[in-house]
Amino acid sequence: MTTNTYSPDSLKEFAGAIFHKLGLSEEDAEIVSDVLITTDLRGISSHGVARIPVYAKRIKLGLINPKPNNQVLKENTCTALIDGDNGMGQVASYKAMKLCIKKAQHTGMASVAVRNSNHFGINAYYSMMAAKEGLIGMAFTNTSPLMAPFGGRERLLGSNPLSISVPAGKEPDVVIDMATSVVARGKLEVALKKGIEIPKDWAVDAEGNFTTDPGKALAGALLPFGGHKGYGLALLVDILSGVLTSSKYGPYTGSLFGNMDRSQEIGHFFLAINIDNFRDYSEFTEEMDKMVKEIKNSQKAEGVARIYTPGELEFEKYQELLINGVVINDKVQEELNFLAQKLGIPSLQEISAQSQIASTV
Amino acid sequence: MTTNTYSPDSLKEFAGAIFHKLGLSEEDAEIVSDVLITTDLRGISSHGVARIPVYAKRIKLGLINPKPNNQVLKENTCTALIDGDNGMGQVASYKAMKLCIKKAQHTGMASVAVRNSNHFGINAYYSMMAAKEGLIGMAFTNTSPLMAPFGGRERLLGSNPLSISVPAGKEPDVVIDMATSVVARGKLEVALKKGIEIPKDWAVDAEGNFTTDPGKALAGALLPFGGHKGYGLALLVDILSGVLTSSKYGPYTGSLFGNMDRSQEIGHFFLAINIDNFRDYSEFTEEMDKMVKEIKNSQKAEGVARIYTPGELEFEKYQELLINGVVINDKVQEELNFLAQKLGIPSLQEISAQSQIASTV
Repeated sequence: MTTNTYSPDSLKEFAGAIFHKLGLSEEDAEIVSDVLITTDLRGISSHGVARIPVYAKRIKLGLINPKPNNQVLKENTCTALIDGDNGMGQVASYKAMKLCIKKAQHTGMASVAVRNSNHFGINAYYSMMAAKEGLIGMAFTNTSPLMAPFGGRERLLGSNPLSISVPAGKEPDVVIDMATSVVARGKLEVALKKGIEIPKDWAVDAEGNFTTDPGKALAGALLPFGGHKGYGLALLVDILSGVLTSSKYGPYTGSLFGNMDRSQEIGHFFLAINIDNFRDYSEFTEEMDKMVKEIKNSQKAEGVARIYTPGELEFEKYQELLINGVVINDKVQEELNFLAQKLGIPSLQEISAQSQIASTV
Repeated sequence: MTTNTYSPDSLKEFAGAIFHKLGLSEEDAEIVSDVLITTDLRGISSHGVARIPVYAKRIKLGLINPKPNNQVLKENTCTALIDGDNGMGQVASYKAMKLCIKKAQHTGMASVAVRNSNHFGINAYYSMMAAKEGLIGMAFTNTSPLMAPFGGRERLLGSNPLSISVPAGKEPDVVIDMATSVVARGKLEVALKKGIEIPKDWAVDAEGNFTTDPGKALAGALLPFGGHKGYGLALLVDILSGVLTSSKYGPYTGSLFGNMDRSQEIGHFFLAINIDNFRDYSEFTEEMDKMVKEIKNSQKAEGVARIYTPGELEFEKYQELLINGVVINDKVQEELNFLAQKLGIPSLQEISAQSQIASTV
């Protein structure tokens, strides 16, 4: 391990200590940490522990409530609406998906929505909770506006991601997790820093012209993936997460990074389907394995080395990093340690050393 | 009206007479006719009455069962699995969505799947059934293989369309209805006939190379829309419709036009969400109207005359054709009248004339 490589356990302990110190209950701090470290393990470092500083900033500014009361506001046999109470999105979402799974196991399927919430991390974490229990899981969230509707140029829609996880047998589960924009806004920032052009279908400039200039694109709006199709899906995610839950939608939501003067007021929507109510579970997973293997072993397009099923790359990364540890880049490590120092908790290196000693005792 | 323009009522009467004569009960013939004529009214003439001859051929060849027994095979509080019994897809799907709506009205949400079925027409018909009752509706179906997985070149996935309808108040409902392929296979045939090239991202040839030659594309495979994202969604639709329902998936399904020696053995999946269980219905539809109006009135991209919400074009076409009638092209009219003659029922023109006399009496 290099000096910047940490075991998942050390990272989880570090993140948990920070969030507990920021006022979250131990249980809630553990939930948030697990979401973040799972994200790093899946190789999505942009959404893992690197996000701790912005969450901390928002909690300290009073924009996120560290001790939410996640009441069930409405409930029926297979639905519920949970109050996010302006807490960390991960906390309400974890509880919502837990309830959703429990209901679906009894009734065949269920959906639980969260209102008045904040950024919840990656969608796949929640859909995978269902798949781990042998259910098909879905997770939707709206986000702050970055994207123009099809044919438009105003930022009226978020990147509004969605995830669906389906359990397989011996093969990795199918885990779909996608933004409904062509790319994340971060890719424009990367292109700008590198001084390279972006493909023509990623964004429009402030006048609504397609642009290959990342700077002009950042001043304009991202485009939905697949034109009117991604636009439709982005709208659906905003309706399920924002409108249906009485949260804010599109242009009325707050940005995690951009709005340090208000809460995000976004919503989430979760759904679980109990496979056994449609088909014998082991028959289902056997057929999933067959389907997945046929796709992976099928003939490749020119220049393609391997065909992946959705989520397979992230699954393999997870297996690898679970053993080899997660590399935290210098800048993120510095920010995390600076935050730890301010909160009076041990640094990443100190926690890592302690856990190595503990594991050799 | 030109000689080829028919009122929806005449078309429905004509189609109903044909399907009844082919062995469907009056009730089932009425269901199929309503799906087809609604499709024509929405301007999707490729999937309307023009499809009657192929359905008739399959029924006469014994590949579609005209008198299915649509039993409920499995049932829980908010799920059911219905046997398509190799009947017309429209019949089982109509019954499935009816049951799904009824369950969702009681329990908050529901999903009903259909196994061992055939082509069901357009997805939007079924999702709109839910929206008309004030619920959010979803409809999925798998189809015969036309499309390669992302990175592949074998036809392992269908165009696997999905539809979601959300009720609005005074504005048209949001009706998303999309194939998960970039385009329908029909567009390749049109390009071939016109002798024009197709865009590079539509298809691969038999060797897995991107191609702009529609002939080579027809010998190869269509591509999913939005690359890996559309691929993920196509897989999801195949899993929900094919694998979950114990029907056939992807390469094992039969083609409506291509396989005149076997049944299609496809499946469908329907879902309904009762809005009132999450938010007061009138509040919801008011906010939908606000959202829709904001998008429609927002600034347009260069060269764009109007921003549409999903389904708005089809809604306007429906309103227009309901009054002005549906134009049936010469070739389709000829095929329909030829079929009518063989079955011993009046021609389109005769039925149309009768209904005009009836309406003036």
